[in-house]
Amino acid sequence: MLALAAARLGFDVVVLEPEPDSPASRVVKHTIVAPYDDPAALRELAQRSQVVTFEFENVPAEVVVQLRALGVETAPGPRALAAAQDRVEEKTFLNSIDAPTAVFAAIDAAADIAPALAMLGLPAVLKTRREGYDGKGQVWVASAAEADAAFTAIGERPAILEAKVPFVRELSIIAARGRRGDIDAYPIGENIHENGVLRRTLAPAEAGAATREQAMAVARRILEGLDYVGVIGVELFELKDGALLVNEIAPRVHNSGHWTLDGCATDQFEQHVRAIAGWPLGPTGAIARVEMLNLLGSEIDAWPDFAADPAARVWLYGKRRARDGRKMGHVNRLSPLAP
Amino acid sequence: MLALAAARLGFDVVVLEPEPDSPASRVVKHTIVAPYDDPAALRELAQRSQVVTFEFENVPAEVVVQLRALGVETAPGPRALAAAQDRVEEKTFLNSIDAPTAVFAAIDAAADIAPALAMLGLPAVLKTRREGYDGKGQVWVASAAEADAAFTAIGERPAILEAKVPFVRELSIIAARGRRGDIDAYPIGENIHENGVLRRTLAPAEAGAATREQAMAVARRILEGLDYVGVIGVELFELKDGALLVNEIAPRVHNSGHWTLDGCATDQFEQHVRAIAGWPLGPTGAIARVEMLNLLGSEIDAWPDFAADPAARVWLYGKRRARDGRKMGHVNRLSPLAP
Repeated sequence: MLALAAARLGFDVVVLEPEPDSPASRVVKHTIVAPYDDPAALRELAQRSQVVTFEFENVPAEVVVQLRALGVETAPGPRALAAAQDRVEEKTFLNSIDAPTAVFAAIDAAADIAPALAMLGLPAVLKTRREGYDGKGQVWVASAAEADAAFTAIGERPAILEAKVPFVRELSIIAARGRRGDIDAYPIGENIHENGVLRRTLAPAEAGAATREQAMAVARRILEGLDYVGVIGVELFELKDGALLVNEIAPRVHNSGHWTLDGCATDQFEQHVRAIAGWPLGPTGAIARVEMLNLLGSEIDAWPDFAADPAARVWLYGKRRARDGRKMGHVNRLSPLAP
Repeated sequence: MLALAAARLGFDVVVLEPEPDSPASRVVKHTIVAPYDDPAALRELAQRSQVVTFEFENVPAEVVVQLRALGVETAPGPRALAAAQDRVEEKTFLNSIDAPTAVFAAIDAAADIAPALAMLGLPAVLKTRREGYDGKGQVWVASAAEADAAFTAIGERPAILEAKVPFVRELSIIAARGRRGDIDAYPIGENIHENGVLRRTLAPAEAGAATREQAMAVARRILEGLDYVGVIGVELFELKDGALLVNEIAPRVHNSGHWTLDGCATDQFEQHVRAIAGWPLGPTGAIARVEMLNLLGSEIDAWPDFAADPAARVWLYGKRRARDGRKMGHVNRLSPLAP
């Protein structure tokens, strides 16, 4: 979807991607099939590109450093990637810029868990510091007696223990910062997860001005704190008293921003391309209310029903195999904005 | 733009195109660079494709016949292409289905022009029967004395002489017919030409119900008359008394339908892909009022101004050379629909 947005603005796209026959490879000028850290591949990518971006935050941060050393611009920069790749660094950064998060503790060994639980309360969630998304690499810990089993369950890797957040709903804000430091954000989305995976986004979410301003202020501090260029996704927990905690940041276009494809004049993909290319940001207002529904695994087989629904805009990703739970496409169901 | 629409619905695209490094080649899975009638290229295209379409009506109609003989579906079919490739056949077909056109006469020699002028009145326009678009291959004839010069000017080729139409404005209707015979059309656009080239489209055009119904009825007769599958552009002349004459038909997505990219939930490119793939047609209602402005030649250099205009959606085609008058991109300027 990033490549499609780039094409419509007249840009050629080169993709570096480890898998052959990737969906992106079918809509770009050139594909380099190689591991992200392959030196020859990075040289070729740098040589062919004016600016390099990524749509997956687990590209090694070192790769971005290497690309910059090869003389090509990258956006966002290595700092954003590093902050998003390690949950302890991420939360430390967020708290440093007054973006509140769940209370947390770094865990290096099973023995660290019991004292952390004493501080954080029960239950708490143990997550690997690095990698893991869509609910992978995390486990709930209901008592100190479960510490050893939990640490084993996540592979005995460096981890973070996070206090349970008594949230009433999950929101996200998709924001962007251009090369000149200009910042804008889309209306907030409300996200419904199932089994740790985003199922639906409702946008613009029903939210008062105070909530919207709080989310915007947090997004602004994050973008400025990271000297960020591009689109960022900020996942938020809304508490009963209306306070927002940051769950995590995604230094890229974000699944909860897919509603903008049909709900806004400039979608998040075009916005990202505009930002990294040094264009002015596009307008972020909603032109429709959208319910975005992810199509997971074999749910994609229902595409004819969605194709026949005049209110549904269908996005199919062209992935070859519909593994269980894999995001195969999404549908944006449109309705008029509330007056 | 067709390839981008196909990609977002999950289709892979293969392009056959005589020029290397074409814009389409940079957004598709595979490009075959060869003349349209190259037998090996057609075999490869047929073997790789489930359905073949075209976005240029001067592909030899014989090519479509050959593709069908190779066992691959084409949409639209050879009949639509043949009708659109020869102006005499086109107008003969149109009149046969009660779609009125300018009065015309077939011209095979300069000597045919004087008697035709006597029937059609002065001035009249002499056009080659085949090829020629954007005002190329045509010349006005103001008197019988100019007949020889006019026939020479268009290359002494088989021609058509058309009576001057005293139109008050030029309109077009972009319509579609699906595989099941379902038909729908977008709101009418009003087209402003300069030097024979489309400069601007305003859509939805200000037009009463009678005009809209007349245009829709004509489009429907054309689509059914050609047993057409896909999107068609029908250029219309509006006369002082409100009657509509068909100027010409384009058996493909049409420049005057580019406004649908930002003005409708389903744009003409997606609609064409839906039709040829056997999907249901998408909704055709306008969601915004659009002024589409073609960027010709070096006008493309003003892209930063358009990129900075929040009301302007920018489409740049990635053509490498900005020759004078060449369509390099377009801008859709949006405003709210009249209530």
